[in-house]
Amino acid sequence: MAKFYNAFAGSSIERIAALSDGLFAIAMTLIVLEVHVPEAHGIANDTALLGALVDLAPRMLTYVLSFLTLGIFWVGQQTQLNHLKRADRDLSWLHLLFLALIATMPFSTSLLANFITFRLALVIYWLNILVLGVVLFFTWSYAQRHQLVDDDLSPEASAAICRRIIIAQSLYAFGAALCVYNTYWSIGFIVLVQLNYVIAPRLPWLERI
Amino acid sequence: MAKFYNAFAGSSIERIAALSDGLFAIAMTLIVLEVHVPEAHGIANDTALLGALVDLAPRMLTYVLSFLTLGIFWVGQQTQLNHLKRADRDLSWLHLLFLALIATMPFSTSLLANFITFRLALVIYWLNILVLGVVLFFTWSYAQRHQLVDDDLSPEASAAICRRIIIAQSLYAFGAALCVYNTYWSIGFIVLVQLNYVIAPRLPWLERI
Amino acid sequence: MAKFYNAFAGSSIERIAALSDGLFAIAMTLIVLEVHVPEAHGIANDTALLGALVDLAPRMLTYVLSFLTLGIFWVGQQTQLNHLKRADRDLSWLHLLFLALIATMPFSTSLLANFITFRLALVIYWLNILVLGVVLFFTWSYAQRHQLVDDDLSPEASAAICRRIIIAQSLYAFGAALCVYNTYWSIGFIVLVQLNYVIAPRLPWLERI
Amino acid sequence: MAKFYNAFAGSSIERIAALSDGLFAIAMTLIVLEVHVPEAHGIANDTALLGALVDLAPRMLTYVLSFLTLGIFWVGQQTQLNHLKRADRDLSWLHLLFLALIATMPFSTSLLANFITFRLALVIYWLNILVLGVVLFFTWSYAQRHQLVDDDLSPEASAAICRRIIIAQSLYAFGAALCVYNTYWSIGFIVLVQLNYVIAPRLPWLERI
Repeated sequence: MAKFYNAFAGSSIERIAALSDGLFAIAMTLIVLEVHVPEAHGIANDTALLGALVDLAPRMLTYVLSFLTLGIFWVGQQTQLNHLKRADRDLSWLHLLFLALIATMPFSTSLLANFITFRLALVIYWLNILVLGVVLFFTWSYAQRHQLVDDDLSPEASAAICRRIIIAQSLYAFGAALCVYNTYWSIGFIVLVQLNYVIAPRLPWLERI
Repeated sequence: MAKFYNAFAGSSIERIAALSDGLFAIAMTLIVLEVHVPEAHGIANDTALLGALVDLAPRMLTYVLSFLTLGIFWVGQQTQLNHLKRADRDLSWLHLLFLALIATMPFSTSLLANFITFRLALVIYWLNILVLGVVLFFTWSYAQRHQLVDDDLSPEASAAICRRIIIAQSLYAFGAALCVYNTYWSIGFIVLVQLNYVIAPRLPWLERI
Repeated sequence: MAKFYNAFAGSSIERIAALSDGLFAIAMTLIVLEVHVPEAHGIANDTALLGALVDLAPRMLTYVLSFLTLGIFWVGQQTQLNHLKRADRDLSWLHLLFLALIATMPFSTSLLANFITFRLALVIYWLNILVLGVVLFFTWSYAQRHQLVDDDLSPEASAAICRRIIIAQSLYAFGAALCVYNTYWSIGFIVLVQLNYVIAPRLPWLERI
Repeated sequence: MAKFYNAFAGSSIERIAALSDGLFAIAMTLIVLEVHVPEAHGIANDTALLGALVDLAPRMLTYVLSFLTLGIFWVGQQTQLNHLKRADRDLSWLHLLFLALIATMPFSTSLLANFITFRLALVIYWLNILVLGVVLFFTWSYAQRHQLVDDDLSPEASAAICRRIIIAQSLYAFGAALCVYNTYWSIGFIVLVQLNYVIAPRLPWLERI
């Protein structure tokens, strides 16, 4: 009976995409709120304000980091959704799980912003990225196994989607491991990896990864 | 005259779906904000931070509970909207009522997170779920009575949508009743019921419900 | 030159609708945040919690009021957008003005929730409703004058859209005037008028308005 | 390999538009939250409340300023997206960069609201507008260079999109420079320029800019 219900329940790619766009938009806006605007009292002139803004630099760094993270996962999820011919109820739930983890990004970002020199905060941030990657990998392999993928997508392209996730996650894991030295090294390395994914087509010597 | 106006007012399924996706996305993101990031002062090292995070466990539990609740109702509402051939003004308002109750989920979640051992908080949370189910049941029976349902949806499928709501609500009510013993029993039972609905197709012995 | 640019700028009904749905969804969710969840300290048992929740009744009333307001204007704007054949840049800006006023509803709601017995708070809330009605009236008359309305919409239906706004605003103005006696009278009357618009088709004796 | 992946990744104009609409909707709503509702204690009557509201005038001014800014950039971005025949991965990222800067508007607005007489706050606000203009200029020139623009858009129209950005940004820069005299002069001038863009078609003598 439940199987019968599940056969026609919750299977609209458009609705998954719309929910995702809304949730990403909110997450992208909430992470800026971590960059707290300085309070007016105690700041008497432009110089004092400049000093207060410079103090926000670490929080701006976590904003950049998290916007890149969200942007990369948005493009990644969108690439999958654009190449599905249909969805089913289970795929909807896999994407809801993905979105539940996207919704925790403002928490992880805020935690890292508050404790930017703490290894634990960085590891939790990385774990958030890791499980996002794992779920996104699984949504695609699920779509492949259940014939939900567009027929006109070549097997090579389909494999590229999976390989891309594995390589990126390996680089993120290496970056996270750098926190044994210093959390800023981790953040810097991960931001560089992300910028590579964003602008790589311009840098031919990085094309191979 | 009003009847004349109402005949052409507010009848776009796409707009209802878009408003719903936006509202669900916001509710899903707001419930995470209940998991307060620890304040930096007073936390000197990773061990202290870990302790502060462990203290957040009950709030993470309510986050999981509410994300499942929102996800299940999102899938449930979407299943209905996907199988309508058209909407009318009254159906729009029934869905707005549904959304008004979805919008209160962050409140109920926050109340339960703040008072997780209080029976009253749990009962209010359950009442929120209950009225959501009642309204969703009513939106479907309204759509059926007013010939808004897709003609290619079988009567069996249509009946399954109603039966699903009744069975789920019965289980939630039983779970809520467990709070006479302990609120954690209630939360645990409801989460298990919800997980069953999410992943049940994998568990054949639960197929019958 | 500017005229030339304006001839092809910003004229997608779908984008106006999507922005509106997002903004309405956020406003509908933010107004719930005015119903502050009681703080845990100082509340020792269910009875104390119940007392704290009863104290929230006025804020729940303003939530209901504002959700009805937002719902009515959402249906009203949607009715217009559904019956346009195209938009132009000026209509986009009229709808942006409408949305700028929708975005202030959480402010007006919060003001009324904080000062529910103050006539000024009620008058400001009513002014917000009034300007929303005025702008919505003007968007429709603009659409009519510039041949943006669907050709298959009868002149009677088109006139009904304007008449509906005028009658509703007259009733709201009367309700607001009741605050010379008591703000609760105003709120009660406005909520009744709104409920009439929401469920009126069920009450034949109110059909004429 | 990466080039291969990038050839089919993230290229849906609809998804970019949907994410943009969500993010603009949230930013437009968040900037109102800067207009803090007065606290109830210490305000005993309507006169005291009126005084507290009058004190909010500068924050209302920054709300108007920022809503105009967001509205103008929303119309500007939409105009571009409406006239693309397709997107590619790099264009997606250029629009994500644009959105990352839109997401910082609530921060810039809040900073200006808190420090409305500080030149630094105004310069930062203007820098936010400037980089938005630069990115929007670049998204269009990118789309032109990579044949992403609709074939039925005349070269004149395409050039008008770029010229419009340059003229507007020149005026904003002049307005920002007025802060050497007084920040209110800057804000006033920029608001006037923006209102000109919004309602200019009604003022024939301003048509030439």
